[in-house]
Parts: sequence; C-alpha cells; structure tokens
Amino acid sequence: MVRSRRTSAPPPLAVEEYRRRVGRIQEAMAAERLDALLITSEDNYRYVTGFNSPTWQNLTRPRFCIVPLAGDPCVIVPSNNTVIVEETSWIRDVRSWVSPNPADDGVSLVREGLRACPRRHNRVGAELGPESRLTMPVGDFLRLREAIAPVEIVDGDRMLRRLRMIKSPAEVARIRHVAEIVSRGFEALASRTRIGETERAVCRRLHADLLARGADRGPYVVGTSGRGGYSSLNLPPRERALRQGDVLFIDIAAAYDGYYCDFDREIAFGRPSDKLRRIYEVLWRATEAGIAAARPGRPIAEVWQAEADAVARAAERLRLLVEPARNGRLGHGVGLRMCEPPSVHPEDMTVLEAGMAITIAPALAFAEPSADGPQGRLAVHEENIVITGDGAELLTRRAPPEMPFIAE
Amino acid sequence: MVRSRRTSAPPPLAVEEYRRRVGRIQEAMAAERLDALLITSEDNYRYVTGFNSPTWQNLTRPRFCIVPLAGDPCVIVPSNNTVIVEETSWIRDVRSWVSPNPADDGVSLVREGLRACPRRHNRVGAELGPESRLTMPVGDFLRLREAIAPVEIVDGDRMLRRLRMIKSPAEVARIRHVAEIVSRGFEALASRTRIGETERAVCRRLHADLLARGADRGPYVVGTSGRGGYSSLNLPPRERALRQGDVLFIDIAAAYDGYYCDFDREIAFGRPSDKLRRIYEVLWRATEAGIAAARPGRPIAEVWQAEADAVARAAERLRLLVEPARNGRLGHGVGLRMCEPPSVHPEDMTVLEAGMAITIAPALAFAEPSADGPQGRLAVHEENIVITGDGAELLTRRAPPEMPFIAE
Repeated sequence: MVRSRRTSAPPPLAVEEYRRRVGRIQEAMAAERLDALLITSEDNYRYVTGFNSPTWQNLTRPRFCIVPLAGDPCVIVPSNNTVIVEETSWIRDVRSWVSPNPADDGVSLVREGLRACPRRHNRVGAELGPESRLTMPVGDFLRLREAIAPVEIVDGDRMLRRLRMIKSPAEVARIRHVAEIVSRGFEALASRTRIGETERAVCRRLHADLLARGADRGPYVVGTSGRGGYSSLNLPPRERALRQGDVLFIDIAAAYDGYYCDFDREIAFGRPSDKLRRIYEVLWRATEAGIAAARPGRPIAEVWQAEADAVARAAERLRLLVEPARNGRLGHGVGLRMCEPPSVHPEDMTVLEAGMAITIAPALAFAEPSADGPQGRLAVHEENIVITGDGAELLTRRAPPEMPFIAE
Repeated sequence: MVRSRRTSAPPPLAVEEYRRRVGRIQEAMAAERLDALLITSEDNYRYVTGFNSPTWQNLTRPRFCIVPLAGDPCVIVPSNNTVIVEETSWIRDVRSWVSPNPADDGVSLVREGLRACPRRHNRVGAELGPESRLTMPVGDFLRLREAIAPVEIVDGDRMLRRLRMIKSPAEVARIRHVAEIVSRGFEALASRTRIGETERAVCRRLHADLLARGADRGPYVVGTSGRGGYSSLNLPPRERALRQGDVLFIDIAAAYDGYYCDFDREIAFGRPSDKLRRIYEVLWRATEAGIAAARPGRPIAEVWQAEADAVARAAERLRLLVEPARNGRLGHGVGLRMCEPPSVHPEDMTVLEAGMAITIAPALAFAEPSADGPQGRLAVHEENIVITGDGAELLTRRAPPEMPFIAE
C-alpha cells in the first residue's frame, strides 16, 4: 500500500479521453447488440459529453444524449442549454427545443434521433438497471417506448457502470485531489471545534472550509452525534449541542470537476472511554484488512470478507460485544457519483481491476447503556482507495490510528 | 406590494401540518379515482413524510411511501434508513429491507403494500407527469407495473404539484428565511469582491458565506461573466478572472429546512456603460411590472405578458436593440424544489392563489460588438414573491434599482 500523495488541481480532461470512452461504449454496445444508447442522467451524461452545469438541480427541463453504434454522439438539449454544450462539451451535434413544453419536452426530437440510427438489432439501451435513475419524466419515457416500437428499449446502464468502474489516470487524479481537500478539512476539524457547539455549526464550518480549500461542491454532509456513539449514518446535522461523552460522526461526499470522494471521520468530545477507543481500534484495523485484501484479480466479495473477519477477530480479542452493522455493505465504488457499483458485499462477484476506485467502510453495531435501557449504536470508518497493478493505493489521508478527541 | 421583512429561523413543522397535507392529498386522490399513491422522489417524500436526509445523494438505495385513500401513509425504506424515519418523520408504519439487493430492492414490499390498499378503481398514482422524476430504477418500476396488473399505474404527480403550489404560512416562512439569507449574502458581495478575482473564487466565497449565514445548502450556484454581459444562465463558475468592463451574473438556489429560494443578481466590474445601465433599468422595471401583475385570481400567463410588455416598452423608450430571451419562461414556482410548477409562460393558465410562491424573472437578449463580430448576450433579473389575499409580497430583498458595480 502506498501512502496518499499531495495533489494540485488536475488539468481539464482532453477530448481524446472522451473519445476513448465513446469507443469503449460502442464496443460494449456491439457486444450487447444495441443500435443506440439513450443517456439522460447527470453522471452518464458527463461521462460521455463533459456537459457540466448546476442546471441538473432544476427538474423542469430534461436533456438527452444519443450514442450511435458508430460515429459521434449527439445531444438534444433545451435551447437555453446550448451555450453550456458549447462551453463544456466536445459534442458538436446539438439539437434543441424551447423548454418547458409539457406537450413535447424533447420527446419527438429523441424519437427522430433514435430513428436515424441504423437499425440492426432493433434494441436501444437506456438507464433502467440497478442504481440507475432515468432523468426524464417516466410518462414521456413510456410514450417514447411506444413510439419507437418495434424497436425495444432494454437496460444499457449495467454496461455503462461496468465501463465507468475502471477510472483513467485523469479520473483518479480528480478523486485524489478532492479526497486530499476533504482529508485536510477533517484534520483541521478538531483544533477548530469546541465542546458546546452544535452539530450544525460544526458541519457548516467544515462545509465552508472544504469550499475554501477548493472543492466544487459538498452536497453530502452527514453530521450526527450521541452519547457514547451515534445511531444513524445518514442524518443531517441538527441543532444538538455537543457535550462531553459524545461521539460526532461526519461523513462527507465532495466533488472536484465532477468526481467525488466519500469518506467519514469520528471525533470524541472529551477523552473517549476505553470501550470507544477499542471500538475505534477494531474498525481502524478492519480498514487496514480491507485495504490489504483489495488487489487486482480478486472478487470484491473477498474485501467484504476481510473487513467482516477483521471486525469479528479484533472484537473477540478486545472482548467487545459488537455485532455486524445491518448496513448492507462495507464499501462501494466512487467516481462521478458518490456511490457507484461495485458494492463491497458478500454476493458481489465483481473482480477488482487496476483503476477501480472504491471505499473501504467496515462497520459494527453495539449497545450503549443509558437510563432508558441499552441504546443501539453504530460505528463506521471509511477510506477511499484505487486498485493498482499489484495492490491498492490510498486516495484519502489515513484516519489517525487512535480516536481523536476534543479536550474539555 | 409589501417589502420583505426581517426573519429568524422558523420553528419545526408540526405533525398537524403533515396531517393536513395528507388529508388534502386523499381528497384529491378520491377525485382522481386513485386507490393509492406511490411516492419515490425527494421533494414529494419530504412533503408527505418529513423524511430529511442527505442520503438522497446516494442512488444505490431507493425508498418508497404509499399513501392509501384513507388512513396514514406507510414508508418502505432500506434498513439503514429506519433511524432517519424515527428522527425526522411523523410516519410510524415503517417497513424495511437490507439494501443493496439488486434482485429485489424493495419492489416486493411495495407490491405487497399496494396490494393491501383496498381496491376500488384499480388505479395507483405514481410520479410520471411533466417535471417529475421517478426516483427508483425504471426497470424495477416496469416489473412492479406488471406484478400489480390489472391495477393500472397512472400519473399522480400533477395532482401533487397542484397541491404543493399553495404554500402554508410555515412553508412561506422557510422560503422567506432562506431568501433573506441569500439577499444579505448578495448585498455583501460587492464590498468583498475585487477586480481580478476569478468567477470561481467569488462564487465559493459567496457559497461559504451563505452557509455561515444559516443556509442548509446551496446546491445551485451559477456564476458566469463576460465582457459587456454574459451568454448563458447555467454555467458553473470558471477560473476566468473578472476584468473591468465585465458583467458577472450569479444565480443561487439555496435551501433552509428543505425549502428553496431561487434568484439572481448582476454586478458590473468597473463603472457600467450607458447601455448596460439602461438594460439593467429595463429589467428592473419589468420585474416591478411582473410583481404588480401577480395577483390572486389572475392566470400566471398575464404575469408573463406584463413582464414581456414591460421589456418591450422600456427598451423602445430607451432606444435599445433587445430581443426576448429564448429561455422558455419568465419565472416559475419555488418550494421544496428550486423550480416547481407553475411556469410564468404564455400558455400556462394556472390561476394565481394566495400562498403561491413564484419567481419573477424577466429576460432579454442583445448583441455586444467585439473584434470577432457581435456576441450574443443575455440579461435576467429575478426576485421571489408570494401571492397574498390582494396582491403579492416580496420574499427577497429587492435588487438595487441601479446596476451595482465594483469600482476600479
């Protein structure tokens, strides 16, 4: 395992990188017998076209990209999006309509665009599979499906996800860059935080700090705390004041130039109890075990096993009563989305390859006594790595091996 | 028109507010002959359940809410989301599964939930209509649709949008609160910005400032500039240094407790030319005209007409060569999404009612001479208002009547 390196902002992606992507997609389309691929979701759209705009937050207007089996893709965008294409995309075949137009918000242009693709297998791929989000009104999609019959629409998303799993050096550089920004933000946290501040105040300051350090956006900011531990991994920060004996869990997904890092840190308020320190140690070691197991050629399920075994072994050695967390998985892919396939999951048989960027996220559950009876608590550590030719390399700066805390 | 008032953070929404919403939805469901309503998207989900989590950024796991024709809704969520429901929602009927499970990510639980609703019309509503986003894999949706046949899935989103258009006082208070935060951020901008800074630096500082002032998130940050004006309304901030003679356009959608404001400001670098000052004046007056036209009982198309006429009249009077911007509309609803129906559009016949929160956004296009020939430029002003019993009230603090600028 190689330590994370200091980074500077990577240069813009070259058109050649997009052309390579389209070439690989078209090879996969041939293998899947697709005449065309219809793309509507922000991440796939950016992967193919480079299109970069906050306008995805606005759901009024959809946008479409059609990848033919041969030749360059075209985009079909609202007329007020054409300048975004000119400024941020390499695609030059741009068709547009004035939107909003509820009677026909791009659908007839998409129908024409699909009809113009040479028909061989009568199959068009679209974003239908697991973890996908078709980013257009489904009523319009159902009408489109009828309008292009007998051409069939099948899932084209699994294929895209498989290709997207393997990151190019330029993609890895972006994840590494934003992971470095968030790592340094986390490292500065303890010295800036005081007992008595609220979850909300601490998280807002961290969020602002990440922007100042160069992150483009940090849309995922979980901050949650509790006495002797926390009980959820997905709560927004509340107006809860942090007191001695609390643990604060912060999980951040932040992006630079479209690419995300996604990892968490724990911080204790006041010197942590022996139990908390041991639980932290269990997870720190399980993270090491997960990173060590992440090697090219191995199924990702083995990474899950390594993390789960390490938690069980360390808990036994330290005589801790802990259980596996029912979180569904112990890590996942990261890239143009904060969570992408594959999953670090016992049934995910994806074989790791150089260029895959994943999170290693061992977790456990335990009980914390209270006046109201035992309270369910969770603990999760998380780091981001990229698979290399012979192992894995950290993209995050490793969490400290002992639980950090804010002194009274 | 009443001026914007100073706000403080509004108290949490009461359970009664959610119960009133469900009551109105169930009345509308009866009118639309729906046996049940299936909800999957963040905004509708929050409207009905209160469910509040950054986890919507993670597309791996879907979540579902079923509203029956009578009785309380139930939610079907991944097992690691149940604590979020306990902490942020009033719903107590919670069903869960361990996700990710690509073979069955909640679909069989949804099928059972829908089957348990008394069948009368054999119709279930789902998010299919204009501007909606079904927030689950569409492959799973198509399988669900087959599994519950002969029960038919029809659009239930138009109905929800109509109900959501009318904001309660508590909803208006949230939009007002975040609009006040962003207004003050905009007002502080000129004194903090220097010629020579980049779009990116200016926008990042503003974004951080809005968080410090109490916004929960500002996911929509457009910042774009150009000599003598800007050419797009949707570009992310670039590393472009702002020079004398530039205009910077910033458009922000930020949220507090789930509710968005959405408005923009323009700022000149160096004293603006006569032409720029007159264009600013045209749009400032057109905004006044739009606000004056926004009265209960009138179709929103009349607001469009008032804005469009005011632009045309003022441009003629000031002898400016401008055209209507091909932006599709001159404002829109705002609430749990930055853009919601209705549209300020000549064909939108939605009748304004007290409680509707909308943006007034007159726009125009003009040409700016350059060494490379005339360059297309846009100009848009935007404010947020709420319709009252006899007119409209500003939610934003009004933009200054003369173009603000940063002195050399």
